[in-house]
Amino acid sequence: MPDAAAPRPSPDRPVDHVFPHRHLTGIYGLKPWEISFLLDEAEQWVALNRGRTKHDDRLAGLTQINAFFENSTRTLLSFEIAGKRLGADVVNMAVAQSSVKKGETLIDTAVTLNAMRADVIVIRHEASGAVQLIADKVDCPVLNAGDGRHEHPTQALLDALTIRRRKGRIEGLTVAICGDVLHSRVARSNIIALTALGATVRVVGPPTLIPAAIERMGVERFTDFDAGLEGADVVMMLRLQRERMAGGFVPSPREYHALYGLTPERLARAAPDALVMHPGPMNRGVEIASSVADDVERSAITEQVEMGVAVRMACLDVLTRGRRGVEGWA
Amino acid sequence: MPDAAAPRPSPDRPVDHVFPHRHLTGIYGLKPWEISFLLDEAEQWVALNRGRTKHDDRLAGLTQINAFFENSTRTLLSFEIAGKRLGADVVNMAVAQSSVKKGETLIDTAVTLNAMRADVIVIRHEASGAVQLIADKVDCPVLNAGDGRHEHPTQALLDALTIRRRKGRIEGLTVAICGDVLHSRVARSNIIALTALGATVRVVGPPTLIPAAIERMGVERFTDFDAGLEGADVVMMLRLQRERMAGGFVPSPREYHALYGLTPERLARAAPDALVMHPGPMNRGVEIASSVADDVERSAITEQVEMGVAVRMACLDVLTRGRRGVEGWA
Amino acid sequence: MPDAAAPRPSPDRPVDHVFPHRHLTGIYGLKPWEISFLLDEAEQWVALNRGRTKHDDRLAGLTQINAFFENSTRTLLSFEIAGKRLGADVVNMAVAQSSVKKGETLIDTAVTLNAMRADVIVIRHEASGAVQLIADKVDCPVLNAGDGRHEHPTQALLDALTIRRRKGRIEGLTVAICGDVLHSRVARSNIIALTALGATVRVVGPPTLIPAAIERMGVERFTDFDAGLEGADVVMMLRLQRERMAGGFVPSPREYHALYGLTPERLARAAPDALVMHPGPMNRGVEIASSVADDVERSAITEQVEMGVAVRMACLDVLTRGRRGVEGWA
Repeated sequence: MPDAAAPRPSPDRPVDHVFPHRHLTGIYGLKPWEISFLLDEAEQWVALNRGRTKHDDRLAGLTQINAFFENSTRTLLSFEIAGKRLGADVVNMAVAQSSVKKGETLIDTAVTLNAMRADVIVIRHEASGAVQLIADKVDCPVLNAGDGRHEHPTQALLDALTIRRRKGRIEGLTVAICGDVLHSRVARSNIIALTALGATVRVVGPPTLIPAAIERMGVERFTDFDAGLEGADVVMMLRLQRERMAGGFVPSPREYHALYGLTPERLARAAPDALVMHPGPMNRGVEIASSVADDVERSAITEQVEMGVAVRMACLDVLTRGRRGVEGWA
Repeated sequence: MPDAAAPRPSPDRPVDHVFPHRHLTGIYGLKPWEISFLLDEAEQWVALNRGRTKHDDRLAGLTQINAFFENSTRTLLSFEIAGKRLGADVVNMAVAQSSVKKGETLIDTAVTLNAMRADVIVIRHEASGAVQLIADKVDCPVLNAGDGRHEHPTQALLDALTIRRRKGRIEGLTVAICGDVLHSRVARSNIIALTALGATVRVVGPPTLIPAAIERMGVERFTDFDAGLEGADVVMMLRLQRERMAGGFVPSPREYHALYGLTPERLARAAPDALVMHPGPMNRGVEIASSVADDVERSAITEQVEMGVAVRMACLDVLTRGRRGVEGWA
Repeated sequence: MPDAAAPRPSPDRPVDHVFPHRHLTGIYGLKPWEISFLLDEAEQWVALNRGRTKHDDRLAGLTQINAFFENSTRTLLSFEIAGKRLGADVVNMAVAQSSVKKGETLIDTAVTLNAMRADVIVIRHEASGAVQLIADKVDCPVLNAGDGRHEHPTQALLDALTIRRRKGRIEGLTVAICGDVLHSRVARSNIIALTALGATVRVVGPPTLIPAAIERMGVERFTDFDAGLEGADVVMMLRLQRERMAGGFVPSPREYHALYGLTPERLARAAPDALVMHPGPMNRGVEIASSVADDVERSAITEQVEMGVAVRMACLDVLTRGRRGVEGWA
């Protein structure tokens, strides 16, 4: 696993400036130096997590509530591990046990979590914009762990960190984001982050699975998979979200694989050292062939999972600095 | 938010007396000074939770098991946060994963939790009396987090603390408890606590939703909502428990709101500075109008949630003093 | 409760030898001294758990993931309590929230947990061999908490510890394992452990519920319950796993109790001081009569639960020594 481990300076970061946002509801609105700053901060946690003692006590005495209104395994686990490794008192609120089932409004739930004096709230919700709604109602930082088709900012950060470590840079790279872009908050956050950091981003997929005005986001659109992969430095596959396609055309897994599955033959179109990424969980044999997923030279998929914990630790640390009285942070 | 923050002395508390109960299965049987003592104890946790570091290590090394046989969000969260802020090793036993599903008896479950050397067990159960049954079988303190229609003592304590802080006293106040009293353990525990502390308690609701012999509990019965609210200092609304009404008359939400929903017009009958309370989660537009729930001057609903964590910390602390070897506690 | 509390030496343990296994996927393959060593190690945790402060920090800074693909209450609770009492950062991954539901392969799940830099993974899975599959793919120790009909090694260890403490020895005892042996990983692990430690093991049950070649495991087969109990020092009842019997003959609870339920009359066939055991949760009135289960002189059932936490603490401690840099451990 090639590794450009040293934290990179963020030369465009204004001297003495701190991360100026109280919440992380999306990548949209972040300046390039702010994104780079979070990636730089994550590097220390990559190192800690690879060491013998994966623990730091800087969040000791703080309460982190993970409020997941949509099922999730890896993202919840990742945030829970991140918080516990920083010493926070971490509690999970699972949807199945939620008052939401008893008809409580989302805002009442937010007000309740706030009244319990949470120090940071991590939210996943099936509705786009739900996280911002909650953020507006609480006194503590809110971290978006994925809301509807809107954003999944920590996924974009972990993807950017993975690319930066494997390629040594992001600026100037050509990144192809492939598959079900329409239903993907992962694609949306990644497009915003990677274009902000100077990459050329292509979206590649069936015409029905690409939003109409996607070019306005500063990306190139390809409906021909082979053309879209041509010379790409990074091939980022998306999960086929069959469960979100109700009402439209739902391709069979076999059809989808034939047209838009990443096979070794297709990958040969990309740059010789192209990186393969996937946010997981993978549908092997659907959007990605197993031989590609398991290619240790090309695939960065497990490294993405590792970077996820580090990036979440960075976000939890940075967003709570003011509350913890770190000098210079409001 | 007016606030009578200083812990109040409990002049009727016998000198050098400690809280003499091993369990907290209900408010019934507690002396007035014992209730006040728990409220006094909670004040320090209100202060801690409002500070920067919400953590105290006095329960370090103790194991708290939250055994919830009935779904719950806010009560479970509140107890979990309370235990973790006191440094306990907190574990949740969720009903969905429970051996109860495999036909194990409640007593066998209790014996199992006891054999794991729990230091305090928090129980919610759909059957009245289930908590006492468990308390009789274990060596450690048991805290009732709500059992059937029987009691929900920490809810009554948090309500009393909220009233005491907002009104400066409880004695002499007129409290109207309104709505589905029949199915409400919250009402039952509150009636016992508030009458013990010297308040005049009215129960107000449809005749079918008030238990037959309720006057024996030392309360006044009103089936006319307007009459019941007249001059009240505190209006405590109950949640309409539609899920518990199977077999009887179930009013539609609209019908219920017209007859027994708390609207600004109705609230005008109460004292000019009357406090509005609700245990949550609220059915907005059913038992309470949104404009009343959100009236920051009158509504103490979010403060109730905050007091919940503090009261539970107090109970966990007080009940485990003997085990922790605190001098003078058995 | 008679109690042979002092840790017993393991005279056959080669001097300076450490437990040489990275994982605990089963009892099969363990040498007798290795089994005894784990039991000896557990003794200190029995003592700690009976004391005032049930906490040791040796796993501080380590991440323990409990990945339970099959519902469980007591085993999950026991492992969670064990890990927390040793100071680990413990996270649970529940099946209901699992990516497995989204079609992810088991190996991808394993690789994901590994990438999050788990220090020890505890797994329960409905498929025999699933735990080994995962163990082969991760860098950290894996503990089997029950896989299909294969093994449940910590159950066998806690049973052996219970017997050793109550009887002062295991060698030379006659142990009758009774009931649904066919579907029981508990039976399988116990047979391997107890025969390795020198006990004579009998399996007793309906012919359809005993595997064909069971004698090859070095046990005696009895289909007559009374004959199988004759003179036994330990009677280990198994849970009737009605949910695993689909497709075959499923006896009614009443039929089963008449033929293979442990009643006081039947127990009289065993040795006068015979110990009664059950892994729980019990079907009272089916495989065991309540009067037998609750006989404090004979029944060791609650002690088994207690030993479970201690044995799991021992396994977590021993398997992570290398990672923690304990001298002499790889």
